[in-house]
Amino acid sequence: MGKNLTKRSEDYSKWYNELVVKADLAENSGVRGCMVIKPYGFAIWEKMQAQLDRMFKETGHENAYFPLFIPKSYLSKEASHVEGFAKECAVVTHYRLKNDENGKGIIVDPDAKLEEELIVRPTSETIIWDTYRRWIQSYRDLPLLINQWANVVRWEMRTRLFLRTTEFLWQEGHTAHATEEEAVEEAKLMMNVYAEFVETFMAVPVIKGTKTESERFAGALETYCIEALMQDGKALQAGTSHFLGQNFAKAFDVKFANKEGKKEYVWATSWGVSTRLMGALVMTHSDDNGLVLPPKLAPIQVVIVPIYKGLEQLAIISEKVNPLVKELKSKGISVKFDNRDTHKPGFKFNEYELKGVPIRLAIGSRDLENGTYEIARRDTFEKETIPVNEVVSKIEFLLDDIQKNIYQKAINHRSEHITEVASYDEFKKVLAEKGGFISAHWDGTTTTEDQIKEETKATIRCVPIDVKHEAGKCMVTGNPSPYRVLFAKAY
Amino acid sequence: MGKNLTKRSEDYSKWYNELVVKADLAENSGVRGCMVIKPYGFAIWEKMQAQLDRMFKETGHENAYFPLFIPKSYLSKEASHVEGFAKECAVVTHYRLKNDENGKGIIVDPDAKLEEELIVRPTSETIIWDTYRRWIQSYRDLPLLINQWANVVRWEMRTRLFLRTTEFLWQEGHTAHATEEEAVEEAKLMMNVYAEFVETFMAVPVIKGTKTESERFAGALETYCIEALMQDGKALQAGTSHFLGQNFAKAFDVKFANKEGKKEYVWATSWGVSTRLMGALVMTHSDDNGLVLPPKLAPIQVVIVPIYKGLEQLAIISEKVNPLVKELKSKGISVKFDNRDTHKPGFKFNEYELKGVPIRLAIGSRDLENGTYEIARRDTFEKETIPVNEVVSKIEFLLDDIQKNIYQKAINHRSEHITEVASYDEFKKVLAEKGGFISAHWDGTTTTEDQIKEETKATIRCVPIDVKHEAGKCMVTGNPSPYRVLFAKAY
Repeated sequence: MGKNLTKRSEDYSKWYNELVVKADLAENSGVRGCMVIKPYGFAIWEKMQAQLDRMFKETGHENAYFPLFIPKSYLSKEASHVEGFAKECAVVTHYRLKNDENGKGIIVDPDAKLEEELIVRPTSETIIWDTYRRWIQSYRDLPLLINQWANVVRWEMRTRLFLRTTEFLWQEGHTAHATEEEAVEEAKLMMNVYAEFVETFMAVPVIKGTKTESERFAGALETYCIEALMQDGKALQAGTSHFLGQNFAKAFDVKFANKEGKKEYVWATSWGVSTRLMGALVMTHSDDNGLVLPPKLAPIQVVIVPIYKGLEQLAIISEKVNPLVKELKSKGISVKFDNRDTHKPGFKFNEYELKGVPIRLAIGSRDLENGTYEIARRDTFEKETIPVNEVVSKIEFLLDDIQKNIYQKAINHRSEHITEVASYDEFKKVLAEKGGFISAHWDGTTTTEDQIKEETKATIRCVPIDVKHEAGKCMVTGNPSPYRVLFAKAY
Repeated sequence: MGKNLTKRSEDYSKWYNELVVKADLAENSGVRGCMVIKPYGFAIWEKMQAQLDRMFKETGHENAYFPLFIPKSYLSKEASHVEGFAKECAVVTHYRLKNDENGKGIIVDPDAKLEEELIVRPTSETIIWDTYRRWIQSYRDLPLLINQWANVVRWEMRTRLFLRTTEFLWQEGHTAHATEEEAVEEAKLMMNVYAEFVETFMAVPVIKGTKTESERFAGALETYCIEALMQDGKALQAGTSHFLGQNFAKAFDVKFANKEGKKEYVWATSWGVSTRLMGALVMTHSDDNGLVLPPKLAPIQVVIVPIYKGLEQLAIISEKVNPLVKELKSKGISVKFDNRDTHKPGFKFNEYELKGVPIRLAIGSRDLENGTYEIARRDTFEKETIPVNEVVSKIEFLLDDIQKNIYQKAINHRSEHITEVASYDEFKKVLAEKGGFISAHWDGTTTTEDQIKEETKATIRCVPIDVKHEAGKCMVTGNPSPYRVLFAKAY
């Protein structure tokens, strides 16, 4: 097809890296581990943002903005939190550059050293709870339901576009509650909001669950998560929602007067999804010809390519196409009429296939004669010639059908890749030969979890929310296990 | 009124600082010079963003995202650019924290020093033009019309909420063109887009103009600007749009092949507005009772306050109010029915006055009997009692009328504060006694400009776009001057 895209079966990882760049989603920048999100990729992210933002607001949250920088002493206040983030912090130590007196060019001015170093936020619990101390006095101030859209920095040693980058974009919700019960409910609610978004809009099925102690967020008492499965059988954590107990309230001394006037520590949650979702989107649906985008998030839902000889014929085609473009736009369908005279139809077909545009219309001289369009869907490559008067309803049908079809395909793939195993040997065999989620008994100890990770690189992705209680024996130690948990190799 | 707000006539600066905090727009954080934008303030900023984003897209721009960090060597590539920003750069030098072996707690790990320091972006020309080198090969790749919504950091010594903060939020447009003419047109276009936004949505009149050489953006050949006038007679630069010539193309070696296949350097613009606009909004319209918000940007356009005795009466009132709320929402009017039983009507009146809600409805037992509402407008404090069936059309009228009225008021204030002077003595007198813009002849030299700034603290805000050519003599040196320029003290 002239795309020079590595096949998934040859090298899945290479396929992904190439696709992200060739489809104009993102590329590496001159700054180690930091990506440039290109306009086409950013347009998808904007659609995700807009929908998530709507869902956050519908569930009573408001947006705010907190500082990029966190004083080192703040980060240190919650012990397990700093333990979790210390190793990957970008640290600001100076606030001025100057011209070197010895002619070495622009240097950091040694006289402009900060008294206290500032950390570029890896996450904002500490700066936000320092603020909440001023905002929360009484039960009347609760619940406080706040979200922030922001960039964060975690100094990752090995980075990959969207999946793991030094800087990434995300949203982080930070809520404060009067009771433990209410905070737990909030954490669960946001896990459900994430699941609904990812399944309904991204068409990516997820498993909801809780993390084991060792996989929990640094500072959380419980981490709820949604886990998706990629085409190569590896899992991807798509979103997390944390019940933080009173850890941050205690670290930052945030108390409220309850209805009886007694002071109590506030209960907290935090939850986030990031540009990592872009990686999940690409890896779930795309194929060897390029991106496959769900219609609900595609920046261009319909592209119209004219097939013509000479500008006169293009003018005749345009006359037919323009009213259609107008009608589709009036229905809120995003459509592009690619009438560039600098590129051939074959080149354009290729480009929109690579970019995952869900529906392609083509119109040539025979279509002009017959009053038809050729309509092609990206997910199955099916083509059909249909009369002009059916084209709008066909497009509406297809936008819906493609969204459903790619979701169903992803569900089928996942169903085929959840395997129950009875022994550690079977576990290793399935992991090596088939991949996917492996449902197995585990004795609940971090020691065993670590051993499995060390020996197989598989981690416990989650204890599913709907787990069946089923007494069994740990596949490694033989010790009692109350239910199966889900293992997988993960991104 | 129980707001404890300093009067503008007493101390304008104190009034502003208090108002921003009390009206829940923003507050200082624990990080020097960095603010927290509170939900109410952020809701206004979101409305600004949404409208600006629409206008950028309508003029053909797309959004993208570039890295937060800029390698020191990039910043140094354009000489006047680094000169302009070197003194206010936050510098990242390390990428890890660790536990001190001597028990001093968490310290910066000296082994994790970066080979090259990274600057937290004060603006993104350098990292973006480093990227454009990869994106631009041919005239077919031009124009490149890209915008980014981002946070930036400039290490300011004296900071004020919204007006000058170490970190602020903004958008920065960066465009690339094949010809000088086209780039100049783009820079002018964006000045006009800014002016239209600020006047139509913020109801803040602006003067369009160009900056003198010494006030230009670091790296620009021409800076177009819009200048607003605050109630205290000081000017505020509300937005800038720069024609950058080929400076960044040359610094980053960005060339394109023209139609004849010849390589040429690319022409550039950049343009931005920031959360500073929030300061302009507050200072233009607000009064001693609090914020006055233009209806087009008010998060709450209409508030309804019930005046009742006992929950039974509140229930009766709610029955009347709920259909009205529904009707207003269906018309896209943002309305809040404040039925909190924890606060008295007087408290609520006060709060919404402070927060600048354009229209307040009140409904009490007499209104129930008479089938009326009391309607009050925030800008003039006028109150009226009107029948229920007229309330929607009255609200629609008032939203429009308040927007017009506060704009006209600001225009009148500005007209009264543009003074033509004939001598330097008169200049100083007007500056001291009246303030505002002063229109005066100047000999065009930086020396004279610097002298005036040094002696009076006034700067040349701009050479107005519609300046009349009128030969005169510089008020300081007596040298020839082709036209008058606008001076003012500025934020």
